[in-house]
Amino acid sequence: MSALAFPPRKALPDGFLDQLAAAFGDNLALGEAVRSQHGQSETHFAPILPDAVVFARSTEDVVTLVNLCVAADVPIIPYGAGTSIEGNTLPVQGGVTVDLSRMDAILQVNMEDFDCTVQAGVRREQLNEYLRDQGLFFPIDPGANATLGGMASTRASGTNAVRYGTMREAVLSLRIVTPDGRDVRTARRARKSAAGYDLTRLMIGSEGTLGIITEVTLRLHAIPEAISSAVCSFDSLEGAVDTVVQSIQIGVPLARVEILDDAQMRAVNRWSKLDYPEQTTLFFEFHGSPTYVEEQVRTVEEIAATNGGGQFRWSNLPEERSKLWKARHEAYYAAVNQRPGAIGWATDVCVPISRLAECITQTKADLATSSVPGTILGHVGDGNFHVIFSIDPGAPEEMAQVEALNQRLVDRALAMDGTCTGEHGIGIGKQHCLVEELGEAVDLMRVIKRAIDPKNLFNPGKIFAL
Amino acid sequence: MSALAFPPRKALPDGFLDQLAAAFGDNLALGEAVRSQHGQSETHFAPILPDAVVFARSTEDVVTLVNLCVAADVPIIPYGAGTSIEGNTLPVQGGVTVDLSRMDAILQVNMEDFDCTVQAGVRREQLNEYLRDQGLFFPIDPGANATLGGMASTRASGTNAVRYGTMREAVLSLRIVTPDGRDVRTARRARKSAAGYDLTRLMIGSEGTLGIITEVTLRLHAIPEAISSAVCSFDSLEGAVDTVVQSIQIGVPLARVEILDDAQMRAVNRWSKLDYPEQTTLFFEFHGSPTYVEEQVRTVEEIAATNGGGQFRWSNLPEERSKLWKARHEAYYAAVNQRPGAIGWATDVCVPISRLAECITQTKADLATSSVPGTILGHVGDGNFHVIFSIDPGAPEEMAQVEALNQRLVDRALAMDGTCTGEHGIGIGKQHCLVEELGEAVDLMRVIKRAIDPKNLFNPGKIFAL
Repeated sequence: MSALAFPPRKALPDGFLDQLAAAFGDNLALGEAVRSQHGQSETHFAPILPDAVVFARSTEDVVTLVNLCVAADVPIIPYGAGTSIEGNTLPVQGGVTVDLSRMDAILQVNMEDFDCTVQAGVRREQLNEYLRDQGLFFPIDPGANATLGGMASTRASGTNAVRYGTMREAVLSLRIVTPDGRDVRTARRARKSAAGYDLTRLMIGSEGTLGIITEVTLRLHAIPEAISSAVCSFDSLEGAVDTVVQSIQIGVPLARVEILDDAQMRAVNRWSKLDYPEQTTLFFEFHGSPTYVEEQVRTVEEIAATNGGGQFRWSNLPEERSKLWKARHEAYYAAVNQRPGAIGWATDVCVPISRLAECITQTKADLATSSVPGTILGHVGDGNFHVIFSIDPGAPEEMAQVEALNQRLVDRALAMDGTCTGEHGIGIGKQHCLVEELGEAVDLMRVIKRAIDPKNLFNPGKIFAL
Repeated sequence: MSALAFPPRKALPDGFLDQLAAAFGDNLALGEAVRSQHGQSETHFAPILPDAVVFARSTEDVVTLVNLCVAADVPIIPYGAGTSIEGNTLPVQGGVTVDLSRMDAILQVNMEDFDCTVQAGVRREQLNEYLRDQGLFFPIDPGANATLGGMASTRASGTNAVRYGTMREAVLSLRIVTPDGRDVRTARRARKSAAGYDLTRLMIGSEGTLGIITEVTLRLHAIPEAISSAVCSFDSLEGAVDTVVQSIQIGVPLARVEILDDAQMRAVNRWSKLDYPEQTTLFFEFHGSPTYVEEQVRTVEEIAATNGGGQFRWSNLPEERSKLWKARHEAYYAAVNQRPGAIGWATDVCVPISRLAECITQTKADLATSSVPGTILGHVGDGNFHVIFSIDPGAPEEMAQVEALNQRLVDRALAMDGTCTGEHGIGIGKQHCLVEELGEAVDLMRVIKRAIDPKNLFNPGKIFAL
């Protein structure tokens, strides 16, 4: 596992745990099992255990905890479903992990306004099950069944972002607790506002370093009348990417369009027991009225045919569609588990779409120089793609190889005016990449962090070292 | 004109103007005519003249000016087209206005990526003329031919926002000069990113108080194959709003949908020499393929018919469409000039769309209690509407009446979980409203302002007093 250097862990002050016990009773966990569960990462980072875990039941609980921690100089780390990728929830300086997953109430759904307000611990699948009967859905889908608070914290996006945007666009307002113990709402429920600084967007993607999100107000969408999904294989990577660019250019509002390379398709076929051609493949989804979906489909089929695309394999029934997207969602596990007992490492860059084919091609050539299997899949409409490595834990040189491959991938994306992360965030894994990407702008971020969290207690050591 | 109290204006330090002259030569203007032009507002605020105007020609000019101003403790106020509504560019504490309108180069258009980078002084009409031949357009349209830098600064939106979003969604990246004289880019050109704090969104809507925008990278869109516009009158306000809500609910991607009340329609007919029925009216625009536009239109016509809508008057030819939207864009002048020599005051609130009909109805009832004519028009798909007052400058009691009407309008919007401004910003006109709306969150904004601009020299006295 990847070894990173952190500042020394501070000892808790005397009596602090007693204060927590008095305030939170059964909602405080000090046992190793619970602390260990909260000290894991989904990917390749070594576990780091918090000193304590508090299960918050209300915003008031979070305020109480923040005040106790700040008075005692103890770090506080927000935690949702624990599905983040860059070690974003690891308590690198110790302290208290505040687990918000039990704050899982759907507080309000406003059908006519296409919005809802939920507690931070509500998971996206839970929300969509709740909304289905009302003809509404929440589109952001990062794959994992993450909490909405966590998704806001990391500016999550995923397969639907090409049509519906990311958490940046999906959130109308947040309720947050700040390091000075204030409980504030960042905005009202209006669709747009020009009232002062955009605190909502400042909090989205700040990974718990500026405030702890306790409630999220989200934009919703009407479930489309017709949904159609299709899979199409291509002779070449360029042909697949050009199909997407030309479709967008002509105005087709692709709801989802995912690219999987040949290696990823092999892994998917094996893991999900499917029989797709093991070539570069696009997974599509179209939303709209029946007539409009038909028109979109016809247009994209024609464009694909001129770009070396094969036959479209259609899934119009809900259960077929679910099977198709289940395979896509399991792509990470399919890729990691192509070697039994392997450790997964998922990285993520995003480039202007005109450079995407070139960036993927160069990355595939680089992967071919390594003995570690790496597969590629991505949200091609946004220019965003992942490499998933399957690392043998018994071969320590593999971790170093992947570190070097990852660094070259980031350098390649930055050279194309791209970003070192399209949706995973910085966490502890990409701090030096952030500086390479934005230079002195990172100092401006530090100025903001120091002003809002002067004692550096909110998820310290994430995004940047202070 | 409205009288507001500001801190005393500071005298410029000795020798400061000589420093400016040495640095900027002919690009420095000290004469009253130029200063007076930069001290005007489009609406009801009394003029306030800057001590000097510098026409920046480059980002380097802005850096030089910022360093000189900060060393001498002199305020610096960015200025684009001067079309803002809430006194956002008035130099309330004196100082230097930096006019960016001569930084009007279109630096880069990336057709395949649907983006472009422009200097801050490029105006939106100029950009769209330039893009037309490439089949692209920039959708945000606040009415005025504003600069892109100014539009970013005030988080502008306008008639197309219901489909294409506001400046919040349209900007990919900014180049800014900060109070410590740094020249930084807030993001790369990738469509999305999870790399650190969202400095782009923090700057958008900050009205020049945190940084001076010198370049803007924007998302573009393909010009739709078919565009169709229509006008439809309604028996009732509720019928008009319900038509829009139901159309959105069924998934029609309205490109524009504007509401004008009977008073506004009377003013439009008179000013633009038209003969529309003087009832609540919707102006629509539909974008898409010919088949899809036809489908949208059919759907909306059916919905309108069930809600008391009259015949649709169609404009499918470009020149007819231009005439229609010209009338809409001239609505402000039409409303103000219904009384010769009148002063205009345009206000702006935004509420959840479920409350829009109620909010407009109550506002009309309130307007009926006043002798000052007020008309209503709005971006109904967003829940955003304006009241435009036509104030007799010879009747000082009218200004007080409008102040009271405006306050009641804001209170009404806030009581409906709306915002005190959907798109005009806070400027000097709505500072107390911002506090009513967001409470302690405004203190968080102040913390950020103090950290980034510790001497309070960047457009001081805007958004809030420090």
